[in-house]
Amino acid sequence: MKKLINDPNLVVEDMVQGMVTAHPEYLKKSEKGNILIRSDAPVRGKVALVSGGGSGHEPAHAGYVGKGMLSAAVLGPVFTSPTPDQIYEAIKEVDGGRGVLLIVKNYSGDVMNFDMAKDMADMDGIKVDSVIVNDDVAVENSTFTAGRRGIAGTVFVHKISGAKAQQGASLEEVKKVAEKTIANVRSMGMALTPCIVPAAGNPNFTLKEDEVEIGIGIHGEPGTHREKIKSADDIAEELLNKILEDMTVESEEEVAVMVNGMAGTPLMELYIVNKKVNEILTEKGIRIHKTFVGEYMTSLEMAGCSITLLKLDEELKELLDEKSDTLGFKVMNI
Amino acid sequence: MKKLINDPNLVVEDMVQGMVTAHPEYLKKSEKGNILIRSDAPVRGKVALVSGGGSGHEPAHAGYVGKGMLSAAVLGPVFTSPTPDQIYEAIKEVDGGRGVLLIVKNYSGDVMNFDMAKDMADMDGIKVDSVIVNDDVAVENSTFTAGRRGIAGTVFVHKISGAKAQQGASLEEVKKVAEKTIANVRSMGMALTPCIVPAAGNPNFTLKEDEVEIGIGIHGEPGTHREKIKSADDIAEELLNKILEDMTVESEEEVAVMVNGMAGTPLMELYIVNKKVNEILTEKGIRIHKTFVGEYMTSLEMAGCSITLLKLDEELKELLDEKSDTLGFKVMNI
Repeated sequence: MKKLINDPNLVVEDMVQGMVTAHPEYLKKSEKGNILIRSDAPVRGKVALVSGGGSGHEPAHAGYVGKGMLSAAVLGPVFTSPTPDQIYEAIKEVDGGRGVLLIVKNYSGDVMNFDMAKDMADMDGIKVDSVIVNDDVAVENSTFTAGRRGIAGTVFVHKISGAKAQQGASLEEVKKVAEKTIANVRSMGMALTPCIVPAAGNPNFTLKEDEVEIGIGIHGEPGTHREKIKSADDIAEELLNKILEDMTVESEEEVAVMVNGMAGTPLMELYIVNKKVNEILTEKGIRIHKTFVGEYMTSLEMAGCSITLLKLDEELKELLDEKSDTLGFKVMNI
Repeated sequence: MKKLINDPNLVVEDMVQGMVTAHPEYLKKSEKGNILIRSDAPVRGKVALVSGGGSGHEPAHAGYVGKGMLSAAVLGPVFTSPTPDQIYEAIKEVDGGRGVLLIVKNYSGDVMNFDMAKDMADMDGIKVDSVIVNDDVAVENSTFTAGRRGIAGTVFVHKISGAKAQQGASLEEVKKVAEKTIANVRSMGMALTPCIVPAAGNPNFTLKEDEVEIGIGIHGEPGTHREKIKSADDIAEELLNKILEDMTVESEEEVAVMVNGMAGTPLMELYIVNKKVNEILTEKGIRIHKTFVGEYMTSLEMAGCSITLLKLDEELKELLDEKSDTLGFKVMNI
């Protein structure tokens, strides 16, 4: 295992320290643990958004904490859900009096722990609600998951609900637009290489030198199948077709596209994938409102990518275009 | 070789196509080749900035084209300088009547070709000047280089000269502040793994499973030495000490810090490196004005990092903080 780390059991603590010292203008750390909070939280009079999950997916989710997106990210150990207590602390620290929406990726541990935290906060009289993101079209059930997994599409949910909250909407309204986003977002990923959980020290799966795994999850959970590596065009087509089989996007309808790197794949390759994604959508007459290419939801040092489509209506488009200033997702409206 | 590519000889063309279709609001492609230009170029009445070099360092340099930074990036083949003709075209297409500054990383091929392009533009009566970035403190001469190499510190040169040009300064003034930045920026890098040039198909060097290379260049050129992998803290200290031996930064003086990933290293590890960088600088009483952690100057899929320090005075600080809106470097001034 070759990594830039110190103690494998302290990677999250060391990372959090590195983040808050790097970006005090964006983030502060809760005294109660690995919870990264907007530096100006609590923001009075706005709905607060809390997300999080296991670490190892950076910039998710601490990179999305800031103006126009999340109020706090709760960081569990690598690939492991944060505790209900931790999430409950985050809720208390960011509540600005108008309630808190929890944005949870659909993994059994996360769903259970965010739900327990919600109950704890309810008892304190804090208005809390939650949404579950399940954008991965690859497999129905999987390791850690009943139902579909939540992957890179979650970032669009952060962005759009964050913009709605920033506009001063109520908890009900923010939840409604989060659910609309979830209903219209689909993703699928693939891996060229496995990744190594630091405390384990060994790859969580293996792939032959000429093999890729299609439909893989962001923790290296099995996908739909393994196959011989093929061209970026063919891979892009396979992932995108699977997504388009699962959602109805007609000619002239608008989408946002995300080509997401799993961490080990350079931008050059992600743009090469986007070339084909753009060609396919353009051929179908589907209008691309905005394209995001980069690392948004990673999997330790895994090489690979995922493609996400978000079908837009006027409301979603307007919210996607609203300014946001976070480390991982800045929209400037130039 | 496991990569998301199509034809290994067309990676730059495919990438450029993926970039311009993804981001038409930022970039347009010249009809004359792999030159990526600000979508609103030429900007009348402002000095234009042109940079570039071999591909494989993304987001450098096309990711720094846009408001407040570069006017154009000229893209050579992977790890190979663009031609004088290409650079000359870029100069012609972005000149807004107040001259063009070329920002060149110190590699013999780049220096020669940018210089020839400058001569060609001179003959057209376009005012052109250039600066050479040589921030790498690792080695004096190296493969491809007489003198020190230009690496991640180049991004600060783009940012600061871009801000000056945006303010309406003259070519002489923009060049002056670019040179001041170069005089005050130092970097050093290391690698955990090699990278594979697509057209070659094989790693450009090898490292044992427990070995790292210290002082490596961004093309895998040899560094100062190889050693057994050690902790992130020890690596950060080694790189930073070498930088601080080469520049005078007193207690209470201010710096900007960049912890740059070589592409294969996840953000988690870069933040872990920053933890130690921050500790060392803080202990010395050096004030950190801003910290940038991410992938700014990469080396295909190489794993590793570099550390850059930029010593600031009031002018450099103000220019660093000016708004910029490019794909790879957004400053919002919140």
